[in-house]
This record gives sequence, C-alpha cells and structure tokens, in this order.
Amino acid sequence: MKARPVRPGGVAVEDSSVFAAHAGGKLSISTALPLQDSRDLSVAYTPGVAQVSLAISRDPRLGSHYTWAGRLVAVVTDGTAVLGLGNVGPSAALPVMEGKAALFQRLANINAIPLALATTDPGEIVEVLTRLRPSFGAVCLEDIAAPRCFELEARLVAALDCPVMHDDQHGTAVAVLAGLQGACTVTGRRLGSCRVVVLGAGAAGVATAQLLLAAEIEDVTVLDSQGILTPDRSDMNAAKTDLAARTNPRGLRGGLAEALRDADILVGLSSSSVPPHMVATMAPKPIVFALSNPVPEIWPEQVSQYGAIVATGGSNHSNQIINLLASPGIFSGALDAAAVAITHRMKLAAAAAIARVAEDRLAVDQIVPHCLDPRVAPAVAQAVIDATG
Amino acid sequence: MKARPVRPGGVAVEDSSVFAAHAGGKLSISTALPLQDSRDLSVAYTPGVAQVSLAISRDPRLGSHYTWAGRLVAVVTDGTAVLGLGNVGPSAALPVMEGKAALFQRLANINAIPLALATTDPGEIVEVLTRLRPSFGAVCLEDIAAPRCFELEARLVAALDCPVMHDDQHGTAVAVLAGLQGACTVTGRRLGSCRVVVLGAGAAGVATAQLLLAAEIEDVTVLDSQGILTPDRSDMNAAKTDLAARTNPRGLRGGLAEALRDADILVGLSSSSVPPHMVATMAPKPIVFALSNPVPEIWPEQVSQYGAIVATGGSNHSNQIINLLASPGIFSGALDAAAVAITHRMKLAAAAAIARVAEDRLAVDQIVPHCLDPRVAPAVAQAVIDATG
Repeated sequence: MKARPVRPGGVAVEDSSVFAAHAGGKLSISTALPLQDSRDLSVAYTPGVAQVSLAISRDPRLGSHYTWAGRLVAVVTDGTAVLGLGNVGPSAALPVMEGKAALFQRLANINAIPLALATTDPGEIVEVLTRLRPSFGAVCLEDIAAPRCFELEARLVAALDCPVMHDDQHGTAVAVLAGLQGACTVTGRRLGSCRVVVLGAGAAGVATAQLLLAAEIEDVTVLDSQGILTPDRSDMNAAKTDLAARTNPRGLRGGLAEALRDADILVGLSSSSVPPHMVATMAPKPIVFALSNPVPEIWPEQVSQYGAIVATGGSNHSNQIINLLASPGIFSGALDAAAVAITHRMKLAAAAAIARVAEDRLAVDQIVPHCLDPRVAPAVAQAVIDATG
Repeated sequence: MKARPVRPGGVAVEDSSVFAAHAGGKLSISTALPLQDSRDLSVAYTPGVAQVSLAISRDPRLGSHYTWAGRLVAVVTDGTAVLGLGNVGPSAALPVMEGKAALFQRLANINAIPLALATTDPGEIVEVLTRLRPSFGAVCLEDIAAPRCFELEARLVAALDCPVMHDDQHGTAVAVLAGLQGACTVTGRRLGSCRVVVLGAGAAGVATAQLLLAAEIEDVTVLDSQGILTPDRSDMNAAKTDLAARTNPRGLRGGLAEALRDADILVGLSSSSVPPHMVATMAPKPIVFALSNPVPEIWPEQVSQYGAIVATGGSNHSNQIINLLASPGIFSGALDAAAVAITHRMKLAAAAAIARVAEDRLAVDQIVPHCLDPRVAPAVAQAVIDATG
C-alpha cells in the first residue's frame, strides 16, 4: 500500500523530518553507574559482580531484584500485521517496536527491548521466548496477524511464568472499554444496558468483544467481513465461533445495516468503511468509535449531523482511543505486583482507572485522557496492582 | 565456591555497597525523542513511523540505518562459565552481562542488550539467535564453557551474516597479544623470536595460542592440566588436537617444568597455580602473565625477585590484561564497517592499536593502557575498520 501524508493535528509533517527522527534508531542503553575508575569497575563489574551472581545462583528469586529483567518488557513481533501496512516483515516492524519501547519508558518508566523475529511459526516463537525467559520479566506481543495471534498468545501464556499480553488485542480492548464508559457518562447511558455493535473480528475486535462481555454488557453483536457472527455459520475460526455462542442475544441475522438499527454503540475495528446513512438508523446521540487506522471506518465530520459522539484511533482528532492508554500502566503494574498473568479482572480495573482520570474534564470531545497524559499510566498501574491475585 | 572479598586497589569494598550498586539492575532504556505532544507522537510513532517501516520493507538495507539494530550488540550467555564461579546458570550470569553492556556503552558508545539463555544446547542457541537476527547487529558470546564454546561460536559464525565473537576467547587473546608487545618492547625483545608458554587450553588459552600463531610467533608451547599438548596424546578435544599439531616446535614432552625452562614468556590462563621456583628457570627478565581470575597462577610479589614483568587479570595490580581493552572497540569497528565476521586480521590490528596507545607511557608497570582509558576503544575501532574486507 502507499504511505499516506502525516497530518498530526492537521499540521503536515515533512517526510524528511520523520526519517530524520528515526535515523540511528530511537533507543539507547544507558547506565546510572559511574564506571570512571578501577573502584567503580570492581563494584559494577569484576570482581564485585561475582558476589551478586553467587547470591542469585543460591536464591534465584533475587534475580528480579539485582538485574533489570524484573522490570524489563520484551516487545515481540513477527512483523505480520504492522500498523495499517500488513505483513512487512520483522525488520520493517522494528521502528514501530522501538517506538513502543520508548513510550513504555516515557509513560510508565519501565524498560522494554524490541525483539523482531524472523519466524512466523507459533511453536518457534514459543521456543525462542522460553529459552530467553531469564532475560526479561514480561512479554508484550505486537503487530501479529489474526487468527495466529490468538494461538500464539495462548501458548505463550501456558509456557511462560510471567505476564504475556498481545497489545493489539487487550490494550485496545481496555482503551475501548474506558472510552465507552466516558461516552456513556456524557450521554447519560448505563453501559451495561447499551446495545453494542463490534465491527471487525480480528485481533482487536475479538478481544474487545470478550472484554465487553466480561464487563457484563448484555447486548453485544459482532460482525466480520461476512456479516453478523451467528452459531450456524461454518466459515468461522475458533475465536469467532466462541463469540458467536456468547453474543447477539436477539438472534439478529444479516449485516451491518441489521446490526446497527437502534444500536447505541458502534465499535469499528475493521479497516472497512461505514456509510453515514446507517449511523442515521442508530439510537439518538449514538456513540461511534471508528478506530480503523490510518483511515477510520467513518470520518467524524460525516456523523456530526446525527449528534454522534465520535472517537478515532488517530492523533489528529479528539477522543483518541489507543492501546497506549492501557499497556504501559498494565505492564508496569503487573511487573510491580510480580503477577504471573494478565487477567480480565486486571484489564477491567485498568479500564476503570483510565475512565476515572478522564472524569474531571469529561466532555463530548474528551471522553478519554490524552494518551500522553502522565496521570494515566501510574493510575492504571496501581489499579492493576490492586486487582492482582 | 565462596565469594572472595573485593579489594580494588587494595581498598576493601563492603558487600552492602556492591549489592546496592546492582539493585534494580544496571541498565536502562532511554530515547532522545521528545514524545511530549501529539506532533512528537505522530513523528516518532503512529502514523509517521509507518513511512519508515514501508521504506525498510521496500529496501531492507535501510533497516540498519533507521533502527538501533545496526549498532546493537547482543551479549549472549548460557551461564555455564561465569567469571571464576563456573556454571551458575543464566539468571546468575545476567548481572555480569549487564556490566558488559554498560561498559560497551561507556567505552565505545555502542548499545548492547544482555540475552541470558535457559539452554546450553548449541543447536538451540543457534536457533534462538537465527530467529532474533533482525533485532541486533552483532553477537558477543560471554561466559560459555569450553569446549562447547568452540562449536557454538563456529556454528553461529556459519549461521549469521553478522560479527560473532566469543569475548572470553578472542577479546582476551587480543589483550594478551597487545600486552606481550608492550612487555617485549620494555625488555628489548622481539616478540616473534620469543619462546612462549601458554598454560591452559580452555576458551582463552586456545584462542590466545591461535592468535599468537597468527602473529607469526614461532615458538609457542601449550599446556593443559595433563601437560604439554603433543600430537601423540589421545585425551584431547578437537581444539587441542589442532594446536598440538601447530605448536611445540622443539618437541618438548612433560609438564610445566619442562616447558618453562629458558622460556621468555608465560601466559597463564588456567586457574591453576605456578610455583615460583619454576619461574626462576625462565630466561632473564621473564614476562609472566598470570591471568587466572580472581586468583592469579602466581602473585606478582612472588616473582619480583626474578626481575619479572608481571601482568594479571585483576584491577588491583598494574598491567591488567582484560578483554575489556579489546571487545568494545572491536565490535564498534566491526559494526561501523558493516563487517560480516571478525577475522584474525582484524584481531591483530586491534592488538597493535592497543599497544600503540600504551607506547607514550610504556613502563614495566604500564605495558598496556588502563582498561577504562577512553583512547583505547576509538583507536581499536579505527584499526578494525581499516582491517575489514
């Protein structure tokens, strides 16, 4: 596909300044130790370090305290679903992983290293991370195509005794849930009673639908490119089949037009498009999350006439719903709590924490905090710690 | 084994201050990008980063320029031969790998990440690093036991199109060669004509003997715990068998006593001990490198009576021979030259560069620069670049 011009907040950014910012990479390793003279060396390196190694060999639990691994996130990708670009491969995915690692540091003060893998085989990826296990404290999966991402995440959760989370699934789902809570408050709705339509059953769509069910929202309908997920369909993968059995309580059949009629909420995670006249058939003051990136399912200007509350995934509109609101704080909290997994309970707590940060300035164009708001990650981290165990 | 007290330059360092220095680990990830507002985010992350990813997907050669991988060293260990501690495992090895990564940054301004592996199988280690290949630009093997380290390094060199070097072998060998050049100048010797005894045929001993042969030193004799390596021995691994065929030109038989008689140089890399009376049988003003760590084969005080020039591996004596003199500059130069391997020619050039830095202050107690001398790594890096290709 062709690269689109970058228009942050409507301001065009020249290609040249984008490439200049990425030259040499975006990360560097630093150390707080002086390393100026022989004494520094004897403390930080040999012979002093031998005492630390010996202590860890006698009590492995000390490893997470006396190395950086205890608060290190491995940001892992196979490059098969990078942003809107698709399967561009691991090397081309690396600049995105570096960006995520830089943001983990900036927002949550946790270290992260990008691991771009030259294999797309789930078994081989599990082998690599199992063998690297002593080197990190958590795994953040990024930009891995569905449905393989579901199998890979499940196998890694089973294989590793540390938090493992596919950000494109669960980070997005948490941000969506937080945004829906804000939007419902602004429109005087109770989220649990809303009719919700999730358009898209890829990584983000499936995880979002699952989290909305965990949040006890009773009326959730999910669609893929073939229409509404229903139990009688024979063209669905395991994740869709599971959702078909647990969603669409009114037994709707058909496509987006049937699903959207009188719906309160549309969550677009589909990279398809939604015709404005269908939004006209939704309930008054509909909530429309058009999160496909870089081109939303429908542009905010197209639905303003219906009094809709709109959110997108882009930084050039208000109400940006992005996993960056969730994952830095989730990993920070999970690592501090020494959690061995990321549970629904932790994700629900994270979404509630994001929504609470937004409360003091809640408005139709501020249903979530800005993704760089420094208050978010610490609040999410504490909520995750409280929800652990 | 028991931990020994740390005595940098004779000054005792309390355990408590050692452990305090390592608490939380010694490394952190930082970024030079601002990441303060939506525009920063649009340039460093989405949507701007998509242009960089797209460019790399179209021309993979751009990857090393627009990511940190081009100048990133993976510091890899399986924890089987950590300092003087032996096989303490990957978690206990991690503090040492962090120290090495910190020193790579401090001395050569290159990034390095520690990868501690929960496997000692060479095939599995090759698989891990082959799959991680897009993530780094070079591999520094550390603290991997002999003889497995020889097979592992050879297989990685064959499998990866980037520099791979086992620091305990070649970094040490380069530092030894540089030190011998300085010691020979101080004692008015020509290194090529010296009789050299290498005590120890582990990782460092084998690589040092190989490099001394590559430096065209004619009379090299190598010993392991069973005595002088000779072709008729049936108890040797492949590396020793190779050396037995290329060393000991005078056909010496027996042990250290036989080897040391009239020898100019002893290079101890053995973790055994050498009785002073044997040094008395060496040539006048003998050169004695007692590099076993933390306890040298013989203490400097024990041989001063023979007018010997002594070097050790420790920071608590003058003439510290340590791979830190070599590897930061070697990897920096190899990465800048986009070398695909570390050759003998590059190692010989690195040793000569270290020796040149020492020349202006050459003395019996300054045969090599201090390992933290900021002039060393840049000089080594340039020499390696000049010797590439």
